[in-house]
Amino acid sequence: MFADKLIDRVISLRNHCIVGIDPSYNIIPEFLKEKYLGSRGGNIDNIVEMLYEFSINIIEHVYDIVPAIKPQIAFFEQYGSMGLKVLEEVCRHAKKKDLLVIVDIKRGDIGSTCEAYAEYYFGNNEWSLDCDAVTINPYLGRDSIIPFLEKCIENDKGIFILVKTSNKSSIDIQDLMCDRRKVYEHIADLVISLGKDYIGEKGYSPVGAVVGGTFKEEGENLRQRLKNSYFLVPGYGAQGGVASDLLGYFNQDGLGSVINSSRGIIGAYRLEKYKYDFNQISYGAAARKAAMDMRDEINMYLEKSGKLAW
Amino acid sequence: MFADKLIDRVISLRNHCIVGIDPSYNIIPEFLKEKYLGSRGGNIDNIVEMLYEFSINIIEHVYDIVPAIKPQIAFFEQYGSMGLKVLEEVCRHAKKKDLLVIVDIKRGDIGSTCEAYAEYYFGNNEWSLDCDAVTINPYLGRDSIIPFLEKCIENDKGIFILVKTSNKSSIDIQDLMCDRRKVYEHIADLVISLGKDYIGEKGYSPVGAVVGGTFKEEGENLRQRLKNSYFLVPGYGAQGGVASDLLGYFNQDGLGSVINSSRGIIGAYRLEKYKYDFNQISYGAAARKAAMDMRDEINMYLEKSGKLAW
Repeated sequence: MFADKLIDRVISLRNHCIVGIDPSYNIIPEFLKEKYLGSRGGNIDNIVEMLYEFSINIIEHVYDIVPAIKPQIAFFEQYGSMGLKVLEEVCRHAKKKDLLVIVDIKRGDIGSTCEAYAEYYFGNNEWSLDCDAVTINPYLGRDSIIPFLEKCIENDKGIFILVKTSNKSSIDIQDLMCDRRKVYEHIADLVISLGKDYIGEKGYSPVGAVVGGTFKEEGENLRQRLKNSYFLVPGYGAQGGVASDLLGYFNQDGLGSVINSSRGIIGAYRLEKYKYDFNQISYGAAARKAAMDMRDEINMYLEKSGKLAW
Repeated sequence: MFADKLIDRVISLRNHCIVGIDPSYNIIPEFLKEKYLGSRGGNIDNIVEMLYEFSINIIEHVYDIVPAIKPQIAFFEQYGSMGLKVLEEVCRHAKKKDLLVIVDIKRGDIGSTCEAYAEYYFGNNEWSLDCDAVTINPYLGRDSIIPFLEKCIENDKGIFILVKTSNKSSIDIQDLMCDRRKVYEHIADLVISLGKDYIGEKGYSPVGAVVGGTFKEEGENLRQRLKNSYFLVPGYGAQGGVASDLLGYFNQDGLGSVINSSRGIIGAYRLEKYKYDFNQISYGAAARKAAMDMRDEINMYLEKSGKLAW
């Protein structure tokens, strides 16, 4: 079961933090751009080779310290079928390194369309993406989630439903007040209802929730409401989420959330905090150091508050 | 401007109906499965060749009678990077035939992630998808739409924001009542506010709305509210929407909606109504006949009610 596997890795590595593989053009070091695009002209073949080298090198530097990676599909889909091919290779590589792979796809559709998506992400075909979990957009309602859930149960996968996202304008829809509860709280109820029959050995269902790390109070309330769901928490670091605000995102068992950082890890080489010890050539080593620092910071706060899972 | 281009084609072809290219495995005729998968073993190369032949043949049979096609990306993404390559070829082929291409992607994400999506669908790169408009999921709020809108304005494209979808459980979230209006009505307001500064010569903005053809009353109310937005209307035919219910989805100018049918056209060869005149080999001719019948039926109702755009 996905949540059990995730918890096993979190505990054995003593790490609640995962690395977002978001290789936007801006975050790729100049020397790589020079290598692949400079003299060779920047055609699509060179671009996707660069995307591959960057992503794989990040994985090589963090696979033994983080439980999972979270590739953002948009940064691969940006380059179309050639980019998606790189994502397929990146996921395969990560799985060989025993990483869990949560692909940030935010798909949401109905009926046979949803089944087609589920077939790619959770299927057993040679061409299926090799991943463990995906994110889902719930705007179309329950029947846009069921086909994913069925494949989830069949093939030991996990889903994280967007409940309260980390961006400022998440309030536009998610915070509308309906019947004395906000829209995202209604979605939270859907998360409970979809997951309740599938709770694993460690007390968590394969139906998780995306809960932004930038809304402390909402995160804590959702934690109370969704005791049996794992949270995927974006927004740490670059988007303004801080470790001390995330304590309430964990259950008393010291579990219940994986905290994602993307730019703060894969772009660590250019941050004030790391740029004196690392240069752009050592962007992988910088990512490793940043991932360790993040792990230690989250653990320190959890230890202080007695929420330790080990 | 996208809406102006769409209206030009609608009027010159006298057709408000578009064809959904949803090549699910089930809808592909047996003789094609035999040709590509039967003796040759059904590996991914054969599957995507089959997907290509089927989609292109449909286009060849309808390009001169319908204003646009709407490929559903999931049925290509199902086969990963190889499938996406077929979609790229299908879109390129359709554009050469002067069709407008509305790709049903239902993406929705924020910041640089949304920009990456917009770059693929609306960019000018050699590897960008050759399309005119896409569908967008609004659950993340305004800042998940702006990057698409900016590219839209820059490159003459269109977006259709999911407002009220055609599926039964669209009520789960979309019909929640917030401050005396339903969630989808709040989204409708967002559609107005995003589009109001970009209204084209014919009175429509490039920010359209997806409004399911299965909810007559809601469709009519949305029409009143969203006078300057084009509707993309799914749900006709297989999902239960009927022509007589769609009159109220049009403005008094006889414009304002394109009605999509997927299974009812591309799978016409197996419908009771067509299977005596066509067999599976002539699935393309059956699709053409079904597309003409659908056009005529919608036009007949519009003519009766005096809502004629020509």
